[in-house]
Amino acid sequence: MKKTPHKVILTEDQMPRQWFNMRSAMKEQPDPMLRPDTLQPVTEADLAPIFCEELARQELDATQAYTDIPEPVLDIYKMYRPSPLIRAYDLEKALGTPARIYFKYEGNNTSGSHKLNSAVPQAYYAKQQGLSGVTTETGAGQWGTALSVACAYFDLSCDVYMVKCSYEQKPFRRAMMNVFGADVTPSPSMTTEAGRKILAENPGTSGSLGCAISEAVESAVGSAGGKRYVLGSVLNQVMLHQSIIGLESKLAMEQLGEYPDVVVGCAGGGSNLGGLIAPFMADKLQGKKNPRIVAVEPASCPSLTRGKYAYDFCDTGKVTPLARMYTLGSGFIPAPNHAGGLRYHGMSPILSKLYHDGYMEAVSYQQTQVFEAAVFFAKHETILPAPESSHAIKGAIDEALKCKETGEEKTILFGLTGTGFFDMTAYENYLSGKMTDYIPTDEDLQKGFDSLPKIPQNENI
Amino acid sequence: MKKTPHKVILTEDQMPRQWFNMRSAMKEQPDPMLRPDTLQPVTEADLAPIFCEELARQELDATQAYTDIPEPVLDIYKMYRPSPLIRAYDLEKALGTPARIYFKYEGNNTSGSHKLNSAVPQAYYAKQQGLSGVTTETGAGQWGTALSVACAYFDLSCDVYMVKCSYEQKPFRRAMMNVFGADVTPSPSMTTEAGRKILAENPGTSGSLGCAISEAVESAVGSAGGKRYVLGSVLNQVMLHQSIIGLESKLAMEQLGEYPDVVVGCAGGGSNLGGLIAPFMADKLQGKKNPRIVAVEPASCPSLTRGKYAYDFCDTGKVTPLARMYTLGSGFIPAPNHAGGLRYHGMSPILSKLYHDGYMEAVSYQQTQVFEAAVFFAKHETILPAPESSHAIKGAIDEALKCKETGEEKTILFGLTGTGFFDMTAYENYLSGKMTDYIPTDEDLQKGFDSLPKIPQNENI
Repeated sequence: MKKTPHKVILTEDQMPRQWFNMRSAMKEQPDPMLRPDTLQPVTEADLAPIFCEELARQELDATQAYTDIPEPVLDIYKMYRPSPLIRAYDLEKALGTPARIYFKYEGNNTSGSHKLNSAVPQAYYAKQQGLSGVTTETGAGQWGTALSVACAYFDLSCDVYMVKCSYEQKPFRRAMMNVFGADVTPSPSMTTEAGRKILAENPGTSGSLGCAISEAVESAVGSAGGKRYVLGSVLNQVMLHQSIIGLESKLAMEQLGEYPDVVVGCAGGGSNLGGLIAPFMADKLQGKKNPRIVAVEPASCPSLTRGKYAYDFCDTGKVTPLARMYTLGSGFIPAPNHAGGLRYHGMSPILSKLYHDGYMEAVSYQQTQVFEAAVFFAKHETILPAPESSHAIKGAIDEALKCKETGEEKTILFGLTGTGFFDMTAYENYLSGKMTDYIPTDEDLQKGFDSLPKIPQNENI
Repeated sequence: MKKTPHKVILTEDQMPRQWFNMRSAMKEQPDPMLRPDTLQPVTEADLAPIFCEELARQELDATQAYTDIPEPVLDIYKMYRPSPLIRAYDLEKALGTPARIYFKYEGNNTSGSHKLNSAVPQAYYAKQQGLSGVTTETGAGQWGTALSVACAYFDLSCDVYMVKCSYEQKPFRRAMMNVFGADVTPSPSMTTEAGRKILAENPGTSGSLGCAISEAVESAVGSAGGKRYVLGSVLNQVMLHQSIIGLESKLAMEQLGEYPDVVVGCAGGGSNLGGLIAPFMADKLQGKKNPRIVAVEPASCPSLTRGKYAYDFCDTGKVTPLARMYTLGSGFIPAPNHAGGLRYHGMSPILSKLYHDGYMEAVSYQQTQVFEAAVFFAKHETILPAPESSHAIKGAIDEALKCKETGEEKTILFGLTGTGFFDMTAYENYLSGKMTDYIPTDEDLQKGFDSLPKIPQNENI
């Protein structure tokens, strides 16, 4: 029997020319985003001061299945895409599993992750609208780097609020964004009202994505009109752009005559997972196929596995609209010993709805388990994975080990979102035995839940 | 006219199955390596205590044009190869040049460079020979990382002597090698006789590749027989393995109907340059084509542009055979303000011979010029280049600007050997204006030349 190739890289001609909107395949839609003042669904006009016009349109459009990828966006995609779908032969052998393990590898670009897939169109639409620049937040730093790269290409200014503990753990991330011309501020900062308020209430805080979002939104809205805010995860528009991951994966697997029995992805705000699963979830929703979809999250920030499905602010400073999602409360701040990303208090409303309706499973792991999987994977597959991505590795390994027990020759697909080159402090801590785990107690979580908005929609939660 | 694709990635089936030996196309061979005691050409038996058997054979075999790449080596190559050949459309536009600029990008693997191409076969042959491990040196860190990755895959021990100033400038490089199970020692160290001697003579030294080689060789030869020394550049065997870069480049350019008028590569010990140019140089030697071949080196370590073509030790501790090459003298130690790699005192004997015989040109640049080119390239091509690779970028940009002046639509190919993710300190220094240049004076160079062996072969030099 002919051995499957080690990897499939589609040609540029085979690369999808359209993004796919998962909502178009959902019979029940996610609950709408609400204005916090009126509790009415937000409109494009409501979003216009915050988001670029086309992005606001994409955010609210649940019905259009396919959106053409603009030519200038395709031009940058072609610099680093299509990304490879790789068969993890040596990992399979090391595990002794009958399963076939594939991973879609998004690390081959300078942001070191899949984040560039959405940074490019977001920067492009900002440029098209004639804006001078964009503001954003970043946690582990991939999104901020991706946006810096895209803004340098389109000659836009780029202001990044970086979660303070990441800023301190990863000084080189900041330097890298500087190379591409971005301004980077540790968050919470004294440069915004939201930041000052958060610091006043919680002076020693190491920051959170929720805080950084508040500052970035305030900074965009307060600019002289020439900037908008952009976000690298959670939003419907981001799920749309990231669908390129799943669309390419599906095409590449078709070339191999494969279809995944299980699709595994790490989940922080949901950008990678939502993109990876898009076409497979559509098949499932439409009854064509029935793959299992597994979200893997850190035990220290367990929005799906221990959060509440409630309306919540997307940020800590409570300046954004309300979204119904699995959330730990916008006041939740992960423990500072948490390495890497996946530290957002909520989860994409689309993924939250799918999880709520039973189309998706979720598991959580502690970080030492995740780093153990990361080092094992690195030694066998020659790639040093990001801590975030390593959650998916751990999930996929456990699925493969289940197959070893049952003897099932399942096809497992997981998303390897990026590289760990800027996470060496965390790797060092792990190797030297200094890394600790943290599982929030029910009391810890309750503090976050107490920050949920007291609105009628949340009454039964 | 149909626009050329942004990049060509050959399929796995199109990937070359054989390495190409540039020597087989040379009418005049490089002078043979000599034993320092007898001044007689070294034999495979002489090399056996230092090198793996098959690698010693490859080192001395000048006639065999093609060597089959072993299947297990192909298996790892397929994890990250073929590497892309990318058209630098946006760079061309930004420069306003009529030239077409292509680069062969070797950064898409965890070593962050082309070094994995030779690390894999070297580890493989060590494993085949039943050895327990290998020892080596590393400068900027890419080679050490590459070898760590390869050794982890083949389950070999890996002892890396890392040039002290790089060890200190790049703590995360060490951490990364540790992830893959390697032991890393800053060089010169007190763990070897060579290291202790160098430290006694030069207590404040920041180290050099030449020092680190001495230590690694001593450590291998002094082991209980289970280890051999491996080297990531300079050697004929390395040129052979790296020919995969050039072979793929030529195939990819053929698919585009292109052939380079100029091939530009950075040159430290010559591994990338020798690999990139292999098939093009063969065409030139055989009179089939006449591309210009340009080596780019740092002004602070100018072996080709200011060195002597002489017999010299490959290391500072004078434990290796003598090779005839362009050299600054094994006693030459680059200034500590020199960022990045390309700090070896000599140059591949093959490339030295070709340069000496007029088949190749060489230019040198100061590091601030190189970083300026790096940042310009990053903003336009979305890739953060390694400082080493950025020498080739600078060379290619200057070639493209010449075309702008003359209006010639030349085809330029350069080698982008890797990524700068572990060079952020250097980038920060550049961005903050703290980076300085250093051009050795003639007196500085004379000190190095004084260390050349006083043997009859060097009398007229």
